[in-house]
Amino acid sequence: MDHRGPAFSGLGHKVLTGMQSVFRTSGPVVIFPSSGTGAWEAALVNTLSPGDKVVMVETGHFASMWASMAGKLGLEAETIPTDWRRGADPAAVADRLDSDYNKSIKALCVVHNETSTGATTRVAEVRDAMNAVGHPALLMVDTISGLACADFRFDEWGVDVAISGSQKGLMLPPGLSFNAISEKALEASKTASLPRSYWAWEEMLEINKRGYFPYTPATNLLYGLAEAIEMLQEEGMDNVFARHRRHGEAARRAVAAWGLETQCVEKRDFSPVLTGVRLPDGHDADRFRATVLENFDMSLGNGLAKIAGRVFRIGHLGDFNDLMLIGTLSGIEMGLGLAGIPHQAGGVGNAMDFLKNNIKAVGRDEAA
Amino acid sequence: MDHRGPAFSGLGHKVLTGMQSVFRTSGPVVIFPSSGTGAWEAALVNTLSPGDKVVMVETGHFASMWASMAGKLGLEAETIPTDWRRGADPAAVADRLDSDYNKSIKALCVVHNETSTGATTRVAEVRDAMNAVGHPALLMVDTISGLACADFRFDEWGVDVAISGSQKGLMLPPGLSFNAISEKALEASKTASLPRSYWAWEEMLEINKRGYFPYTPATNLLYGLAEAIEMLQEEGMDNVFARHRRHGEAARRAVAAWGLETQCVEKRDFSPVLTGVRLPDGHDADRFRATVLENFDMSLGNGLAKIAGRVFRIGHLGDFNDLMLIGTLSGIEMGLGLAGIPHQAGGVGNAMDFLKNNIKAVGRDEAA
Repeated sequence: MDHRGPAFSGLGHKVLTGMQSVFRTSGPVVIFPSSGTGAWEAALVNTLSPGDKVVMVETGHFASMWASMAGKLGLEAETIPTDWRRGADPAAVADRLDSDYNKSIKALCVVHNETSTGATTRVAEVRDAMNAVGHPALLMVDTISGLACADFRFDEWGVDVAISGSQKGLMLPPGLSFNAISEKALEASKTASLPRSYWAWEEMLEINKRGYFPYTPATNLLYGLAEAIEMLQEEGMDNVFARHRRHGEAARRAVAAWGLETQCVEKRDFSPVLTGVRLPDGHDADRFRATVLENFDMSLGNGLAKIAGRVFRIGHLGDFNDLMLIGTLSGIEMGLGLAGIPHQAGGVGNAMDFLKNNIKAVGRDEAA
Repeated sequence: MDHRGPAFSGLGHKVLTGMQSVFRTSGPVVIFPSSGTGAWEAALVNTLSPGDKVVMVETGHFASMWASMAGKLGLEAETIPTDWRRGADPAAVADRLDSDYNKSIKALCVVHNETSTGATTRVAEVRDAMNAVGHPALLMVDTISGLACADFRFDEWGVDVAISGSQKGLMLPPGLSFNAISEKALEASKTASLPRSYWAWEEMLEINKRGYFPYTPATNLLYGLAEAIEMLQEEGMDNVFARHRRHGEAARRAVAAWGLETQCVEKRDFSPVLTGVRLPDGHDADRFRATVLENFDMSLGNGLAKIAGRVFRIGHLGDFNDLMLIGTLSGIEMGLGLAGIPHQAGGVGNAMDFLKNNIKAVGRDEAA
């Protein structure tokens, strides 16, 4: 399809309004031809000026990469550290912002679902904490792996900029990224002076009104996006979230049966998207992952940065059903045996028991 | 495929070295998950500092958009105007650079194939002109629509940064963009101070050495790219260029038979990629394009910016053969009749005569 032709605007309008419903916002959503990292950059360069201070809660590797990007773009990036085993702590956010007497912090950034650990941040509670201390910083939320898997409510939770990508809950190849934008963020963009062109919201929003894009969009992925949004709406977003929560619980029950520990230790923050699992001391998670890949052709996520070699990650997101989860868990259980990792069998059985006793959440095919 | 898994580096190395052969360079090529506009931005932010002066030869709409981007990024963009009916004039480049006594111009930017008009720039002559006046500016070349259609030789022609995209000569959907980088440009990037992160060459090149990317690549398009490079190598680059030149000539013979004028008037600059055609005064090219779309389901390129409504464009690039060209030309000839545009019939016949009397250039299937 000609992305400047008359038929294109139908597709353009469809995906732009569809993404508003996925983010649960009545405000604008923009779509970039880039991977999610680009939408991080877009969030920063559209709203901030050189030297502005931003605070990232370092809940894992992706939060720390975002902070590193902010530094490269000429911002002053400060991090609130964590032990990488939980989401952002709203009380720690409140403490930091409350001590910012001259309101020099311009944005507070959290990761909705930290892909490197398997912990979520309670975004609504973070917003409440910011409001409680009356701090005007923008709330930016990376929901690259969270969106369309875990409950996310842009307007209701008072998020100012949300960042996402095509390759997780939206079930597409990588290559599209998103910003959802609040009125306050849009207002900030009018005075923000970081240089920007590719990522600039203003021209994008102007041309989006007619269903087009200011430069060549990733047309083929937009077709896929229209279909993905339809699939999500057909299943119902609440059913999608329930399906992911249920798979997370089943995966954790398998991990518990094996006698292993999850990376996330804060129950309220358990991720419905993926589960990070720690191996016992003295056992290399990457060697275990290689055993599973070699014998069962399954690529488990690796531990990143400071938990490299300690952790492997089980993804249970997107276009995923009960039988795929059990297949995944069986590859891990067999791999633990082959690799000589101390564990008890029975994880697969435990997960099956949980799934068959809790069949309330229907899958896409049943809902259709 | 897991873009951090062991199998990925094979694909990564394959496309990175393959693209070096397409650009004809022994230096590095980087691949961004973005459309071509992003690679424009990458070329500028990696090599330049705020306030630096750049000169763009405004050969058409895309050159003028690139200049506009430079301004938004905090550079001082100056343009050398043209009548939009030819490529960049090497003598005009030499004149402008020669008058830059204090060498304040940091980059000279030209478009190899101007998609909005159908004119190419003789890049080697532009480099010679720069050398003749001894000016140290970087030579940046947008070959988004030129690469893998029209002859391009990065090293031999002394280009410093080349910009391209996946959706033209590389025959893929939009979503990948490229920079080829000279040693001089790489050296400039070490002191260039425009803020950058997503587009930063340094980290990209470091991680590319191992066949990986610093953030999520557009994996599915990389598979397609590996296949596209193989197709080009199978046909042979010189055959690919000859095929495009031959189709350009056939298209222009049709235009001449119709009694219409091509937008490009400089014979040496005729594009082998596309042909821009002017309608007689008083006839609206967009109305004509609508007639063709409605009756024959063919979307012709529109005239952009200052030639809107005056010009339509015939693309004859990428995965394209003789019969597709004749089909295209027949839609135009029938459309001219239906829309009541004054013309003579016989364009299709003229193109067929030329093609069958000049069958030296073999297509891909014959070469395989």
